[in-house]
Amino acid sequence: MASKPITGLALNIPTLDALPDDIQRYFKKCEEKLGMIPNVLKAYSHNPAQLEVFSRFYNELMFGESELSPLEREMIAVVVSSENKCFYCLVAHGAAVREYSQDPSLGEHLVMNYRSADLSKRHKAMLDYASLLTRTPSMVTPAESDTLRSVGFSDQGIWDICNLVGFYNMTNRVALAVDMQPNSEYHAQHR
Amino acid sequence: MASKPITGLALNIPTLDALPDDIQRYFKKCEEKLGMIPNVLKAYSHNPAQLEVFSRFYNELMFGESELSPLEREMIAVVVSSENKCFYCLVAHGAAVREYSQDPSLGEHLVMNYRSADLSKRHKAMLDYASLLTRTPSMVTPAESDTLRSVGFSDQGIWDICNLVGFYNMTNRVALAVDMQPNSEYHAQHR
Amino acid sequence: MASKPITGLALNIPTLDALPDDIQRYFKKCEEKLGMIPNVLKAYSHNPAQLEVFSRFYNELMFGESELSPLEREMIAVVVSSENKCFYCLVAHGAAVREYSQDPSLGEHLVMNYRSADLSKRHKAMLDYASLLTRTPSMVTPAESDTLRSVGFSDQGIWDICNLVGFYNMTNRVALAVDMQPNSEYHAQHR
Amino acid sequence: MASKPITGLALNIPTLDALPDDIQRYFKKCEEKLGMIPNVLKAYSHNPAQLEVFSRFYNELMFGESELSPLEREMIAVVVSSENKCFYCLVAHGAAVREYSQDPSLGEHLVMNYRSADLSKRHKAMLDYASLLTRTPSMVTPAESDTLRSVGFSDQGIWDICNLVGFYNMTNRVALAVDMQPNSEYHAQHR
Amino acid sequence: MASKPITGLALNIPTLDALPDDIQRYFKKCEEKLGMIPNVLKAYSHNPAQLEVFSRFYNELMFGESELSPLEREMIAVVVSSENKCFYCLVAHGAAVREYSQDPSLGEHLVMNYRSADLSKRHKAMLDYASLLTRTPSMVTPAESDTLRSVGFSDQGIWDICNLVGFYNMTNRVALAVDMQPNSEYHAQHR
Amino acid sequence: MASKPITGLALNIPTLDALPDDIQRYFKKCEEKLGMIPNVLKAYSHNPAQLEVFSRFYNELMFGESELSPLEREMIAVVVSSENKCFYCLVAHGAAVREYSQDPSLGEHLVMNYRSADLSKRHKAMLDYASLLTRTPSMVTPAESDTLRSVGFSDQGIWDICNLVGFYNMTNRVALAVDMQPNSEYHAQHR
Repeated sequence: MASKPITGLALNIPTLDALPDDIQRYFKKCEEKLGMIPNVLKAYSHNPAQLEVFSRFYNELMFGESELSPLEREMIAVVVSSENKCFYCLVAHGAAVREYSQDPSLGEHLVMNYRSADLSKRHKAMLDYASLLTRTPSMVTPAESDTLRSVGFSDQGIWDICNLVGFYNMTNRVALAVDMQPNSEYHAQHR
Repeated sequence: MASKPITGLALNIPTLDALPDDIQRYFKKCEEKLGMIPNVLKAYSHNPAQLEVFSRFYNELMFGESELSPLEREMIAVVVSSENKCFYCLVAHGAAVREYSQDPSLGEHLVMNYRSADLSKRHKAMLDYASLLTRTPSMVTPAESDTLRSVGFSDQGIWDICNLVGFYNMTNRVALAVDMQPNSEYHAQHR
Repeated sequence: MASKPITGLALNIPTLDALPDDIQRYFKKCEEKLGMIPNVLKAYSHNPAQLEVFSRFYNELMFGESELSPLEREMIAVVVSSENKCFYCLVAHGAAVREYSQDPSLGEHLVMNYRSADLSKRHKAMLDYASLLTRTPSMVTPAESDTLRSVGFSDQGIWDICNLVGFYNMTNRVALAVDMQPNSEYHAQHR
Repeated sequence: MASKPITGLALNIPTLDALPDDIQRYFKKCEEKLGMIPNVLKAYSHNPAQLEVFSRFYNELMFGESELSPLEREMIAVVVSSENKCFYCLVAHGAAVREYSQDPSLGEHLVMNYRSADLSKRHKAMLDYASLLTRTPSMVTPAESDTLRSVGFSDQGIWDICNLVGFYNMTNRVALAVDMQPNSEYHAQHR
Repeated sequence: MASKPITGLALNIPTLDALPDDIQRYFKKCEEKLGMIPNVLKAYSHNPAQLEVFSRFYNELMFGESELSPLEREMIAVVVSSENKCFYCLVAHGAAVREYSQDPSLGEHLVMNYRSADLSKRHKAMLDYASLLTRTPSMVTPAESDTLRSVGFSDQGIWDICNLVGFYNMTNRVALAVDMQPNSEYHAQHR
Repeated sequence: MASKPITGLALNIPTLDALPDDIQRYFKKCEEKLGMIPNVLKAYSHNPAQLEVFSRFYNELMFGESELSPLEREMIAVVVSSENKCFYCLVAHGAAVREYSQDPSLGEHLVMNYRSADLSKRHKAMLDYASLLTRTPSMVTPAESDTLRSVGFSDQGIWDICNLVGFYNMTNRVALAVDMQPNSEYHAQHR
């Protein structure tokens, strides 16, 4: 398939050397650690102030202190993105689930329909909640948290789940609306 | 109606003087400017690292450089929150629309059904797009941006609209899931 | 916001003195009691025969004999209208909830999302039922009435709830379809 | 199939001779004209005040002055009831469409899916509108009336359509909620 | 209503004597047993290879070995077709339910809303499952089969139910998409 | 992830040598050509009569005469299965799209959201139609075929598209309901 531009909008994304120094450093670090600069960061780089607050928020939710493991955070990312059918986030976070779980088939299940995966009670409850809060937010009240508590999540953990579900409902909408294209490197990773 | 706690979760929200110095300063600035500390900030304060990145992201999207006026950003906040039926955000941002527009009736319209409001073509297109991207994100592609361009938005402006729609789809889900209660001060403001 | 006509249709609404005598008397009574002639009545007045049967039906359901209190009938009106996003009915009956309950915040909750309000079991069951019967009527059978019975409603009371839910599903559709505008007096009442 | 009671609620429906005189006369007129007392009237008769206002409203909308023919009013009744899957109203008004149209197949089409019927442009537009206003009332504004005008409806006619759509959205919900059973006579009529 | 062609597509359906011999024989058998050649078979006859595999699949599911009675298979056909609003299948299989059950009213109930019919626990569970798997397939997992087991279905019976639900979800879509018209003979049968 | 049984039902699937001779031959042919016996066939083998008619129907639609290319038929299979979130069919037919197209990224796009793929007008129209007929069959009439004709499909081609959309709406429901697990070989194929 012919390669598409990073987004379907005309955003005047600057070249690497025209970016502020701290963003240049951040992008170099991405290349060293991930082997690429994720296209979502390049897309935001047309507005360096937004890029900074977006990436800091992202890093805090995905890598900050929490009782949720890194794999669990990625599992939520994929299930929310599957409900919303976000191509960018499914490709990028599907690869991360394959990596963290060392189970390529789990990544496929969560992309396609987490209900068919062989999940622990904890993960089933967590992903049912993520799916519900994505699809029908107006119907969710704290009563729906009781199942999460019964499988061992603390109220701080539930708060973190809500924030992750919220975050990917945000990025899914941005990525879908502008037709953001994921880096091609993701496709073959951790198969 | 009996007053409910800030959230329906047990989050161990610290008292003001137990918070880090920079958050104490931020909260005092809120009290001076707004006459209150918005409950959403108090809720996040159980995790100061999250509070910082959340409030910086919020401030950048709502007050950073953009072709969208402050009123337009608040209009998007209310219409997204109306589709999701988020009590907290409707109360807080409904008050902001009343304030910025000096038109209490406009605030009511956007809370209840923006389609019945008497809007300019620009605002009609902007809010139709916000509603669509909230309700059916998987159906939105850059083709849906054409109407926005035809009423004068640049592609950077469209990007900003997408980010605002995304942001309130995030906060709506957090606020609904934890049953966040807005400060009582909002109700009577700018009627 | 510029004032819009009472409806978006060209209905040839007669002036007060061109109306039949009994309608003139009815409208004068409205002005004395409410300080205004509700626009829904003015809209129907282009067809005096319809106005008469509509207003008699309305008055019977809202003020006739029933175990439902006046406040409860208005609460149902607001929750049905919130599910349907009917601007006219939310403005008019939201004001009535504020008046009867002496609790402006309750009016706001029911307009925005009754699930976040602090309700008695009786009112929670009543409004859950009103919401369900509004959203998915084909799924409702008498089995769904059991919760209503368990919180103290008799079968006559349940019948009355069904009729109120039905009535506002009717008026919401008429008001939305013709873009009926509420009297401006409602906005500031009982805040 | 075993015969079910008129409704699934315990409504203490009085015997004919215990009813007020005017209702007794009304019911006798029904028997003469229709060969039966429609069960919906019997159900309302537990509350004579409601019965009176309901039947007067019904008679005005179905038989009062309007540019809509009796068949067109029944066609709307059936299509609204089909979207809501109301057994009572489909049976009763399906029989009426068969009668007025002298076309049993048209009655079947409207009950099952009016989109497959061979309709005039006028009737197609009228029923598309009835279906839309039934399914997604919050999306309907006066802009949706333009197609109705283009096939010859006046604004008074559009008002009447809205009221009929509204009315059956009311009665469908009452009949579904209480599981109202239609008179068995309807089934074989006008086949 | 004017008679419409068998489908809304231009399919070059051959005359009977231009068909392969085995199809001619099959069609003659239909005429003998049913008094007509069902239009669905005529529609497929433009592609004899498809007609053969379609009719063999249909005959196996409807008349092959199974713990489901012929009536039960037809009941599933009607309820699936009612959820999908398929005119062709509702007419043809509604007639079959009337025939097998000797209960014209049951046929009407299942066409219009099976939830209002007076069903055994076994049939209620079977039709609830058929409706759910039709409307929200992605939500159905083997957990939903437990109710079917509790009313006496074996796992082979559940498999057969799933295949019938699947089959009518297929034929409904073909018939709706091409506007397939049922033979007029069905309408008056078994009333 | 621990391996799950072929289905979540207890179906008494016979061993290869207990199957009828013709099925044994068919399964051996599968192993030679595909390197495996697809689990869907093993699942149906508990009922050899069903297996035969199912596999003949499948083979006719997927490999019989048609203006649709083999890749186009697989593209429809994947897009229908994506709307229904069918894990089995997405895995099996996603692999086929990767194989026929020699474009692993196209397979991913169609699994996740075909709207983000870079498609020809012909394929865009074909997949929009497949998605619509899957999601809202009752809204589809022959009028929706006009776009297909405008991109070059004949009416026979449209018929074939409808049958493929129908077929996968059938198999998706069977596979989801019984939690059918795809052969593990698919995952790594044609990446």
